[in-house]
Amino acid sequence: MTFLKIFLLFPLLSLAFSQETFTSHLLPRPLIIEYPENTETNFRELEEEFKLHCISWRFSVEANNINPWKTIPQECAEYVKDYVTGRAYGFDLERVSKEAGVYAKAIELSGDGKDAWIFDIDDTLLSNLPYYADHGYGLEVFDHLEFERWVEKAMAPAIKSSLKLYEEVLGLGIKVFLLTGRGEGKRKATIENLVNAGFRDWHKLILRAPDEQGKLATVYKSEKRNEMEKEGYRILGNSGDQWSDILGTSMSIRSFKLPNPMYYIP
Amino acid sequence: MTFLKIFLLFPLLSLAFSQETFTSHLLPRPLIIEYPENTETNFRELEEEFKLHCISWRFSVEANNINPWKTIPQECAEYVKDYVTGRAYGFDLERVSKEAGVYAKAIELSGDGKDAWIFDIDDTLLSNLPYYADHGYGLEVFDHLEFERWVEKAMAPAIKSSLKLYEEVLGLGIKVFLLTGRGEGKRKATIENLVNAGFRDWHKLILRAPDEQGKLATVYKSEKRNEMEKEGYRILGNSGDQWSDILGTSMSIRSFKLPNPMYYIP
Repeated sequence: MTFLKIFLLFPLLSLAFSQETFTSHLLPRPLIIEYPENTETNFRELEEEFKLHCISWRFSVEANNINPWKTIPQECAEYVKDYVTGRAYGFDLERVSKEAGVYAKAIELSGDGKDAWIFDIDDTLLSNLPYYADHGYGLEVFDHLEFERWVEKAMAPAIKSSLKLYEEVLGLGIKVFLLTGRGEGKRKATIENLVNAGFRDWHKLILRAPDEQGKLATVYKSEKRNEMEKEGYRILGNSGDQWSDILGTSMSIRSFKLPNPMYYIP
Repeated sequence: MTFLKIFLLFPLLSLAFSQETFTSHLLPRPLIIEYPENTETNFRELEEEFKLHCISWRFSVEANNINPWKTIPQECAEYVKDYVTGRAYGFDLERVSKEAGVYAKAIELSGDGKDAWIFDIDDTLLSNLPYYADHGYGLEVFDHLEFERWVEKAMAPAIKSSLKLYEEVLGLGIKVFLLTGRGEGKRKATIENLVNAGFRDWHKLILRAPDEQGKLATVYKSEKRNEMEKEGYRILGNSGDQWSDILGTSMSIRSFKLPNPMYYIP
C-alpha cells in the first residue's frame, strides 16, 4: 500500500510542481502541500471502504446470509488471501474448536455407545489451503476434476485445532462419524490422508455412493444423519465448514461452523 | 490510542534521558532513540491482538458457535461499542437486507395469499441501540424490568435497511408476520412504536401469551411457525438478529441473520 501511495503521489506531485512553474501567477490556489495529505486521506478512505465491504461480505457468508455463491468477490481477493494466510483464520479455527471442546466436556454422556459426533472432512479436519493457494483462494470457479486430482494426492495437512478437538471428543468416549461429500471412489485416498494427518479411531467414514452424487449436500447429509438416528445414535455435536454440513433435518444438538470464506457448497 | 502512547512514552523518555545524564559513561548501550519505536511496536501488537480476539469472538457469535452467553467479553467492550456506533454495523445490516431483497424478488410467488415472511422486532425492525448505549452495549447483564420500561416508551427508531426490506416484501404481495419475544402486555406500546417508526400493514403481530413466558425463544418461535404452516402459510423468509429467531422446527426456506454482538437470547 505504501508503495502504491508513493507510486501515485509522484505523478501528482510532478503535475503540481510543473503547474506551479507555469501558472502560479494566474489563480489563487491552496498550498501545494495539501496534495499529499488529501491523497493519503483518500487512499485510507478507499482502503477502509474496501475492508468494510469485504469484512461485511465474510460475515454474511459465515451467518449464511449469502447463498448460493460460486466465487469470492473479485474486489475481496486480497482480503480473503490475507485472511486465510494470516493469523486471523487460525485464530477463528481455534476458537470454534475450543468452544466445541468446552461443550463436549460439559455433556452428560449416556455411556451406552450411542453418543456420536460428526465431523466433515474437507476444510474441517483436513486443510485444502495448499490447493486453494494455487486457485486464487476462491477467485476461480470450482474445478471438480482438478480438485479430485488434489484429493488423490492425499497430501492435505490436518487443521491442528480440529485434530485437538477430534482427540478430545474421542477421549470422552464419543463415537466419531466422518461424513464427507467426497465420493466412495476416494475412500482409499481419504483414509490414507486422514491417517497421515494424525486422525484415527473413527467409528464410521461415510462417503457419497454413486447414486448420491447428484444430491444437494444438505439433503445427502440430512439423510445420513437420519440413518444414524434410526440406528439409535444421539448426534451431540457436528463440526463443518459449510452450512450444508449443519442445516437440514436430524440436526445435531449443537453445531460448530468453521470459517470458510473460499467456497460455498449448497 | 495516540494519547496513551504519548502518555506512556513520556516517563520512558524521562527515565532514558535522566539515566543518560548520570550513567552514560558507565555502559555501552543501544541508542535511546530505539525506545519509542519498540514501545510503538508493542502497542500495535497488543492492539492487533485484542482486535483479532474480538473480531474472532464476533464471528463465533454470528455463526452461532458461542452459546449461551450473558454479557460481551469485558476486553471487547470498546470493540463492540466502536462496531455498533461506527459504520460497520450499518454496513452489515444493509447487506443482510439487500441479500434478503434479492432473494424475495426472485421467488416465484403462488399468489394465493399464503406466501409469508416473518420479521422479529427487537434489533431486527426496531433498534434498541439507544437503550444499550446506556447499558454498556452488552457489558451489563440484561435487566428485564429496565428493558420493559424502555419498551413502554415506544421510542425505538426503525432500522432503516430493515424498513426498506419490509416495504419491498409487502410490495411483492407477501404477507408479513411479526413474531416477537415481547409479552402480550406490550402489544399497545409495540404497535405505537412500530407505526411511529414507519411500519404498517403487517398481517399478524404475534407476542408471547402469559403461559408462554417461560419457554425458550427457539421453542416458542418454532411453535408459532408450526401454527402458521398448519394454517397453510409457506414461510419463504425469516429475518431475525438471534439464532433463536431462525433455528428450530418449521424453519423458513431462507433465513436472514442480522448482526447483533450485544446480547444473546436462547
